Amino acid sequence: MNTKARDPATCSPLLTDLYQLTMLDAYYQLGMEQPAVFEFFVRRLPTGRNFLVAAGLEQALDYLENVRFGPDDLAWLKSTGRFSSMFLDRLAAFRFQGDVMAIPEGTVFFASEPVLRVTASLPEAQLIESRLINLLQFQTLIASKAARCRLAAGSARLIDFGMRRAHGAEAACLASRASYIAGVDATATVEAGRLFGIPLAGTMAHSFIQAHDTETLAFSHFAQCRPDNVVLLIDTYDTERGAKRVAALSRLLRAAGIRVQGVRIDSGDSHEQACRVRRILDDAGGNDIQIYVSGNLDENNIAALRRDKAPIDAFCVGTHLSTSYDAPALDCAYKLNQYAGKPRRKRSAGKETWPGPRAVYRQTDAHGQIATDWLTCADETIEGRALLHTAMIRGQRCYPPPALDEVRAYCRSELQSLPEPLRTLEVNRGSPVKVSQRQHQLAEEFDLYSAMEMPFDRQVSDLMSEDG
Amino acid sequence: MNTKARDPATCSPLLTDLYQLTMLDAYYQLGMEQPAVFEFFVRRLPTGRNFLVAAGLEQALDYLENVRFGPDDLAWLKSTGRFSSMFLDRLAAFRFQGDVMAIPEGTVFFASEPVLRVTASLPEAQLIESRLINLLQFQTLIASKAARCRLAAGSARLIDFGMRRAHGAEAACLASRASYIAGVDATATVEAGRLFGIPLAGTMAHSFIQAHDTETLAFSHFAQCRPDNVVLLIDTYDTERGAKRVAALSRLLRAAGIRVQGVRIDSGDSHEQACRVRRILDDAGGNDIQIYVSGNLDENNIAALRRDKAPIDAFCVGTHLSTSYDAPALDCAYKLNQYAGKPRRKRSAGKETWPGPRAVYRQTDAHGQIATDWLTCADETIEGRALLHTAMIRGQRCYPPPALDEVRAYCRSELQSLPEPLRTLEVNRGSPVKVSQRQHQLAEEFDLYSAMEMPFDRQVSDLMSEDG
Repeated sequence: MNTKARDPATCSPLLTDLYQLTMLDAYYQLGMEQPAVFEFFVRRLPTGRNFLVAAGLEQALDYLENVRFGPDDLAWLKSTGRFSSMFLDRLAAFRFQGDVMAIPEGTVFFASEPVLRVTASLPEAQLIESRLINLLQFQTLIASKAARCRLAAGSARLIDFGMRRAHGAEAACLASRASYIAGVDATATVEAGRLFGIPLAGTMAHSFIQAHDTETLAFSHFAQCRPDNVVLLIDTYDTERGAKRVAALSRLLRAAGIRVQGVRIDSGDSHEQACRVRRILDDAGGNDIQIYVSGNLDENNIAALRRDKAPIDAFCVGTHLSTSYDAPALDCAYKLNQYAGKPRRKRSAGKETWPGPRAVYRQTDAHGQIATDWLTCADETIEGRALLHTAMIRGQRCYPPPALDEVRAYCRSELQSLPEPLRTLEVNRGSPVKVSQRQHQLAEEFDLYSAMEMPFDRQVSDLMSEDG
Repeated sequence: MNTKARDPATCSPLLTDLYQLTMLDAYYQLGMEQPAVFEFFVRRLPTGRNFLVAAGLEQALDYLENVRFGPDDLAWLKSTGRFSSMFLDRLAAFRFQGDVMAIPEGTVFFASEPVLRVTASLPEAQLIESRLINLLQFQTLIASKAARCRLAAGSARLIDFGMRRAHGAEAACLASRASYIAGVDATATVEAGRLFGIPLAGTMAHSFIQAHDTETLAFSHFAQCRPDNVVLLIDTYDTERGAKRVAALSRLLRAAGIRVQGVRIDSGDSHEQACRVRRILDDAGGNDIQIYVSGNLDENNIAALRRDKAPIDAFCVGTHLSTSYDAPALDCAYKLNQYAGKPRRKRSAGKETWPGPRAVYRQTDAHGQIATDWLTCADETIEGRALLHTAMIRGQRCYPPPALDEVRAYCRSELQSLPEPLRTLEVNRGSPVKVSQRQHQLAEEFDLYSAMEMPFDRQVSDLMSEDG
């Protein structure tokens, strides 16, 4: 398990933006290798998200433990003619030896909160930016979407059918992982089953039906060849006719010791179809035959189907889940908060950051539900549960990766701690996040300090005369 | 180049949905191994797309040439307890030995048109479905988005900054490839540069500025350490002040033989900022310093900026490009059209398919612009250019992968063949696709044939008595 994350292709140091290498070259030339603190956070929640679920940390830690420049990487970089031998020698020795604090996978969190904090020499903390964001944002995105599907589906079974429209192979497997953490029950993606031990599930395709001369023959063949998992797809030609065929066949199969476990409906009005199919199956004594529904499902239509009491036992969610279709990216960043012991802050319009390393403390109410998340300076202590935990010290993990089922159970308890206004699928504009007095003070002090910066003309001439 | 696509992880046979394996087991048990024809096509265009650009074929062919079950794959499948030894022995010998016809990469196409046709034994054609869709849909999605950005950007430079918010590593690299095909000029993603030979581009990050005590010092350091590519990020604290610093510094640097190539603005009102920065730079004699803009760009705001004559030389497009943000998936399918010589058709509500293998012929007007795409039966001949070409025979590629720059040049000519109503960014509801008379006839005949299917009760009892 987890072998893929250690695969060289997924830990390649070239999975980075060109500017990281260019800046590293400059940092080395300038001797700027003092400790830097960077934090990964989400600037604002996408429309249609009241909370996010942290995921992707284990793959990020795998990457940090394993990222290094091999001979092929260095030879290729040399061939571009962009980099000096001295720089390439430094890269050959590159290892990530920093410290990492992070919010555990499966934790519910909100905008502005630091999800991961890296403390490392400036070049080490810089190079890893692109892949770190790439890994953390994607799984967090999908876990957050999956959590909404889970909340919508109640106790019904949820299955990930998202591989084909996921953005590539890595996306498909990591989407299955993130979805499983957030409460999806199984995946159809075989590779995700192998990599992460996620339970597999599947039914049959229209092509199986079409390849047979009649639908009944296809059903009967499938049941006899794969008696362990008989879930029959009934909408290839006419859903009700398909259901009647299954009803008739299931009695004969039962006599032969084969149980039809379910039928799947992949098109049409899911509510109406499910009701009609349920009646047909029940009338034929097939009360134990479950109804699976697939096709363009998301948390909103799942919630509507459940509100309308559609007799559906399993929701198979594909594209909407594996691409987070309504919000396919998070407005997130990995920003420098401190260098060489001094707090740093970005003031770009609409993209300001908080200066200095930060922490988050969660306070809950008497029912264990989230009341306030306090955003503080890292060295403050505020009552409540600290969300950031030490994950890595000097480039080494502090604990073995937790079992995925433990992360999943933890995430379930996290979702239970959401107060009703945040748990709803409807957009809620409230946020439980408050910023501490000291953090506000530090930001003001930083701005005061910036305002005292020397006028630029004097600086420039000083600078050039030093060079001359 | 292209080595990654041959990486075992990207050609793993377990990159598939569980049901493909289950169906394969049944097909082998039943001896259903006659030739099948499957076609990949897009059911309908996403809102906000008037055309699509085919991409991903080379990775799909790599996969088909290399997909096979290794000892580890087989051992893991065995460990699941789901499959018989007999079936696993069949898988051990699995090779894709079918024929493939496809629309070349870079071709403009429309809904309903077959993009790729597989003719192979039913199990071979079935197993590959999930990964084939996964590869073709993603690159086609991104190439189609990139083409809109290209049309919007006119002759301005377009750079892919999309890695960090792409859905994983494979998505980032394949998005760079697809974007380059459709006219993006360069990518910041280093691994994509290595894998596919795409030109690299990059600037600097806010952290570089923030790590210095003053902005001017940061600019000066960067220019002196990396004099080959001086593009300075000026919005960390105050964009106009940043521009003034660059203006003053550039004169001094010029005297030292270093040229400031450009400045980048990553926040605020791009049009207003670019105008002010242009004036500041020009007033200081920096007319040759280019303006790069990034931050939340897509084809629509690029078009607006160009319409308003914003003085922007390069657009750096990230999230919107690498996730196809406004339409992060295509409604596409890979469907059985023929088995054992008989046409097959799916009649599911809203998801009907055309029966039998198909072809597309493109007719252009006197100006070389697309007039009509005729959707025909594969054995019809209609005047016009046949879009489907033979790509693979008996599992072997028919030609070496074309150079990416050739594909890119071809795509440019394809975009030029778009008539104005389809080329616009605005939604146009017209489509140049027409269906041939014979294709309509075949569909009617198929439905007639289906209607004559025996009543299900008789079938079921016949079936079971055969078994008994």
